[in-house]
Amino acid sequence: MIHAMVMTGPKQPLKLRQFSEPALEPGAVLLQTLGSEVCGTDVHLWHGQLAGVPYPIIPGHVSVGRVAAIGGAAADVDGQPLTLGQVVTFLDVYGSCGRCWYCTVAHATTRCPQRKVYGITLSADDGLLGGWGEYIYLRPGVHIMALPDGLPWETFLAAGCGLPTALHAVTLAEIQFGDTVVVQGSGPVGLSAAILAQLRGAGRLIVIGGPELRLDMARALGADAVINIGTTDEATRHAQVRELTGGRGADITIEATGVASAVPEGMRLTRDAGRYVVVGQYTNAGAVPFNPHLDLNQKHLDIRGCWGSDVGHVYRSLQVLARYHTQFPWAQFISERYALSHAQQALEDVAAQRVVKALILP
Amino acid sequence: MIHAMVMTGPKQPLKLRQFSEPALEPGAVLLQTLGSEVCGTDVHLWHGQLAGVPYPIIPGHVSVGRVAAIGGAAADVDGQPLTLGQVVTFLDVYGSCGRCWYCTVAHATTRCPQRKVYGITLSADDGLLGGWGEYIYLRPGVHIMALPDGLPWETFLAAGCGLPTALHAVTLAEIQFGDTVVVQGSGPVGLSAAILAQLRGAGRLIVIGGPELRLDMARALGADAVINIGTTDEATRHAQVRELTGGRGADITIEATGVASAVPEGMRLTRDAGRYVVVGQYTNAGAVPFNPHLDLNQKHLDIRGCWGSDVGHVYRSLQVLARYHTQFPWAQFISERYALSHAQQALEDVAAQRVVKALILP
Amino acid sequence: MIHAMVMTGPKQPLKLRQFSEPALEPGAVLLQTLGSEVCGTDVHLWHGQLAGVPYPIIPGHVSVGRVAAIGGAAADVDGQPLTLGQVVTFLDVYGSCGRCWYCTVAHATTRCPQRKVYGITLSADDGLLGGWGEYIYLRPGVHIMALPDGLPWETFLAAGCGLPTALHAVTLAEIQFGDTVVVQGSGPVGLSAAILAQLRGAGRLIVIGGPELRLDMARALGADAVINIGTTDEATRHAQVRELTGGRGADITIEATGVASAVPEGMRLTRDAGRYVVVGQYTNAGAVPFNPHLDLNQKHLDIRGCWGSDVGHVYRSLQVLARYHTQFPWAQFISERYALSHAQQALEDVAAQRVVKALILP
Amino acid sequence: MIHAMVMTGPKQPLKLRQFSEPALEPGAVLLQTLGSEVCGTDVHLWHGQLAGVPYPIIPGHVSVGRVAAIGGAAADVDGQPLTLGQVVTFLDVYGSCGRCWYCTVAHATTRCPQRKVYGITLSADDGLLGGWGEYIYLRPGVHIMALPDGLPWETFLAAGCGLPTALHAVTLAEIQFGDTVVVQGSGPVGLSAAILAQLRGAGRLIVIGGPELRLDMARALGADAVINIGTTDEATRHAQVRELTGGRGADITIEATGVASAVPEGMRLTRDAGRYVVVGQYTNAGAVPFNPHLDLNQKHLDIRGCWGSDVGHVYRSLQVLARYHTQFPWAQFISERYALSHAQQALEDVAAQRVVKALILP
Repeated sequence: MIHAMVMTGPKQPLKLRQFSEPALEPGAVLLQTLGSEVCGTDVHLWHGQLAGVPYPIIPGHVSVGRVAAIGGAAADVDGQPLTLGQVVTFLDVYGSCGRCWYCTVAHATTRCPQRKVYGITLSADDGLLGGWGEYIYLRPGVHIMALPDGLPWETFLAAGCGLPTALHAVTLAEIQFGDTVVVQGSGPVGLSAAILAQLRGAGRLIVIGGPELRLDMARALGADAVINIGTTDEATRHAQVRELTGGRGADITIEATGVASAVPEGMRLTRDAGRYVVVGQYTNAGAVPFNPHLDLNQKHLDIRGCWGSDVGHVYRSLQVLARYHTQFPWAQFISERYALSHAQQALEDVAAQRVVKALILP
Repeated sequence: MIHAMVMTGPKQPLKLRQFSEPALEPGAVLLQTLGSEVCGTDVHLWHGQLAGVPYPIIPGHVSVGRVAAIGGAAADVDGQPLTLGQVVTFLDVYGSCGRCWYCTVAHATTRCPQRKVYGITLSADDGLLGGWGEYIYLRPGVHIMALPDGLPWETFLAAGCGLPTALHAVTLAEIQFGDTVVVQGSGPVGLSAAILAQLRGAGRLIVIGGPELRLDMARALGADAVINIGTTDEATRHAQVRELTGGRGADITIEATGVASAVPEGMRLTRDAGRYVVVGQYTNAGAVPFNPHLDLNQKHLDIRGCWGSDVGHVYRSLQVLARYHTQFPWAQFISERYALSHAQQALEDVAAQRVVKALILP
Repeated sequence: MIHAMVMTGPKQPLKLRQFSEPALEPGAVLLQTLGSEVCGTDVHLWHGQLAGVPYPIIPGHVSVGRVAAIGGAAADVDGQPLTLGQVVTFLDVYGSCGRCWYCTVAHATTRCPQRKVYGITLSADDGLLGGWGEYIYLRPGVHIMALPDGLPWETFLAAGCGLPTALHAVTLAEIQFGDTVVVQGSGPVGLSAAILAQLRGAGRLIVIGGPELRLDMARALGADAVINIGTTDEATRHAQVRELTGGRGADITIEATGVASAVPEGMRLTRDAGRYVVVGQYTNAGAVPFNPHLDLNQKHLDIRGCWGSDVGHVYRSLQVLARYHTQFPWAQFISERYALSHAQQALEDVAAQRVVKALILP
Repeated sequence: MIHAMVMTGPKQPLKLRQFSEPALEPGAVLLQTLGSEVCGTDVHLWHGQLAGVPYPIIPGHVSVGRVAAIGGAAADVDGQPLTLGQVVTFLDVYGSCGRCWYCTVAHATTRCPQRKVYGITLSADDGLLGGWGEYIYLRPGVHIMALPDGLPWETFLAAGCGLPTALHAVTLAEIQFGDTVVVQGSGPVGLSAAILAQLRGAGRLIVIGGPELRLDMARALGADAVINIGTTDEATRHAQVRELTGGRGADITIEATGVASAVPEGMRLTRDAGRYVVVGQYTNAGAVPFNPHLDLNQKHLDIRGCWGSDVGHVYRSLQVLARYHTQFPWAQFISERYALSHAQQALEDVAAQRVVKALILP
């Protein structure tokens, strides 16, 4: 029998459930889970803040495992055949149809209505379709990626889904060499964005966030200045950013907070003709006022919203990690490791921001 | 003596003032005014809604004239020497320094702090620096452009500053072939944007605006559908746009209204992963609420604010007009022509939206 | 029995072959062919100039048909269910895997190694997989598109594969309002590029090509100037383009000739810091000399090669045709219609450039 | 009296000449030279390979100096007033008119016909207009930039004009996270491009060049693989790059060699739908053959030529150096320092590639 941790509904305690070993369809792959991350999305799932979730679910949308069984043959994104025992990861999103208008005309695959997400929009009643279990069942067509040589799998999980999400956002940010970049938020997305900004040649990096545990991490990874939201108000933060930028404001601002009021604040932190990427508004935190004349039009602001990541973002994250993980402290994002049976504690520690990143090691 | 109409201050009646003939500096040019437009900005000036205006001013920032005198030698943007009697226009903005950070590093010349604008930020006490007069004094360095052969100068004024402003916005909109484009606003900027959308190969064009006089013009220039803001509420407009777009919303929305609440409405009219250009928020019309999760992040919206135009926008407007003015009814934008002495009436007719476009013919 | 015209090998006469009515897999669709185009690629196929062609083939990669049978259920790209009797077209390319590195990371689906092309890389031994037959078998997954209301299907075929190919090229060309555009080549791709350049707001359009039959069409669709390659040499063409562009050269040049020497010529026709799109080098016509310093580096040229089209290009072509086909003479591209039994004559007429566009009407 | 080294004509020995102290126009600045670089362009000047050079000239187009005198008042690009004794650099290019078609419509200031270049297109007969002298006369309007705090001026000169040139090229290259980048050439431009590729998050970096002295530097700055052109032929290099890229070729290739045959080779080293930036073809090295079908069209290649740099490139180079000069070995590019009187030797050492970078310290 295989054990997995199941979230039966919003605000319900997680339960350990037993599953029988699945039979493999052609092209399916069974992974023995090495580890799976706990991220803010799991807290949202537990708080019932996401729509369309088919509880019960097995949480865990970014995971690493060892290939335990293959349904005939399967290959990774590079076209290489998978082998038993190989350590791989996979894109949580699968089933993007490749045929609908969003996939083929708009080239916006993250808006494909057919897409399903491991650990989020697949039910535990349909199998081992999330990472917080001893095994994960990868349906045919799941995008599987080998971990590059020399990249420890724990480091990949330490970066977690925050890295491809940040990579999506920083790509849209179109940072130019020497730009001053402000990152709003010091959670896993914000911290990875702060690293990636340096891998776009940012000239000055300012991280606005909290608590101190996370700001220390921001300093350690290279932030030139750090502003604690717990001890400042908007006016002070605005003044500090202007002070650091010769009065002009940030060339590029990246929002990764989840707090609605951070968005109009971010517009104001950005310079005239600058660019603002909003990636952190993953759940509905209500409406906020902004001034279209002052905050957008007069300053020629370019604002880009984004969400989630596609195969390319995860593939590129792997390449970036493989080459730069010794230069930047992604591995240190892991504050705590938990056994499968302690998943409830992991969830609560992340909810309370007592840790930067928590891992489940089944 | 030379006559020009002077706006002495906000809400003051215009006054006809006499000026002596100016001596020309080297490189300066004296134009005998053929015509000058009256635009919404002139109404804003008269209502005192713009900051930093050095009243008294001679309004009129888009004008056409005949070269009456040249201070030595001067050339147009193409490098061709000017000749006496030639019919030319010029960019109202001049004095962008070409040396500051905005000009040289950010390449955002419309944000250069040195820029001055004929008819807006130059004082009548300093000379004939606006179009509502018998002559206009072009200081050395003003960007002068010859009117292309075959383009009637009245047609150029009919398009007025709305055309280069719209061209700026439509360029930023990055319309793709076959896109559905919604234009919010049916004033001179909105109408020119509606024409230009067709000159980017839009597949469907929807204009939202009013009053009927302007919507008739929108229909005449090619709009596939027209929605009257006077007889609809936001929910109805939203439903109509969804109906026309297979439920998805506009690929591209361009705002040209000046009404703050149009901006969050426009976000919602645009499809997931679409683009929204906000060009109409020229004056401060207050704050409005929007929902960062629903209106921006979840839908992967790309929002771009812009304002004004540069040499390239006006130069390109001239090329577009020269080639397409017989195909689209720019010339019909002119509702009324006024003698210099009737400028006050022109201003009031534009303020009341009794006309689409008014010209002063000194 | 179903009749289709088969190309058994390079330079062999076409043969009419009989096929039995196919059984439909789930998701497959049988089309009763209304018409199919004859294009330059078919000539290349007949001359044996393309690699990897699995002769015997049924040529015809752009076709329109009436839905005659559906294997269960099938939908078009917009997600609408297909109905019997409906008039549709489909993308010739199918089978792009959506999983390989080119599909998911590079987002270059036209380079997917799994892609197959109706009428080109599918064998007649495997079924009715080309357009020159009474019926066409659309395998599950083929991208089907309904013809928009009001668009005559013959007009769609008149534009043929030249239109989406040109749309691909003109999209890459990033024409700005008022640009001078030179199109090299006056075949179906060149002529559609010339139309599309006007639907990007080109300020001046110059077509270089021949013979006179095609240049007349170029004039009719709006070319401001036409240069006959049969009566000019490179130096003359260069001088004429410079003359028409104030000495600067074209802002944008689009190559659609198939002649290798046209490529370095096109580099020289383009202005400094201009852009050059090469779409016509579909077969290997040998090497040509160019000067990297003069032709590329010193002039800051931007050169983009492209080939073929994807779903989006065809979908957008349909939108553009539906809205603008009464404004531009695509329908007149058809010089001749041929019964299925006269396909050999059609092929020879296209090879000899006796026609602009030939249709097979089975 | 002030001493400066003068190049009187192609292939003539340099001569030390005396100049009297210049009187300063309003806005002009006199710099006491701290150092000036010797670069490949100076070798081209000496070999007579550049057109339009007004010999005699004072070479030296990238220099650092101390403000010795100010003609009234002058400010840097950031708008800060200059002060006596301050250490600054300046853009060699000055006089871009800001009024011509290239400056205002095409936004291609590096193609402005009015531009002049210190050390290259300004004559020694007109003053101290190059860096190889005890003082440099900066005319009004020269773009002056303060050296950021903490950046040693020798490090700025070590990077020299190679850095902004490489920054221009790498910006055009639009490297995406994780891309494999091949740099052709290991001179100052190539080496800076190799560093900057890492500051765009390249996943793999391959440098092709020579001799070993320079390849050692490439290894030291982070190249993952190095290929010596002296010991390989094109076929071997091609095979090695394919081997390192899973058979696909480089995502991005950047040419910085000056050798014409490197350009078609670089096209072939790049993967399908990849991008190729050609920056090294600064002088006319003759024509080379390429195959438009195989090398450009079929592979959907994007090729971009560029040359030189503008204010923004140098400004951004300063920001990048200030933040990353301790991480990358720009300072070690300096192989040798020469007194003003030994400039001839410096020139010959650079010509013979005996050094990576040589400095003149007057």
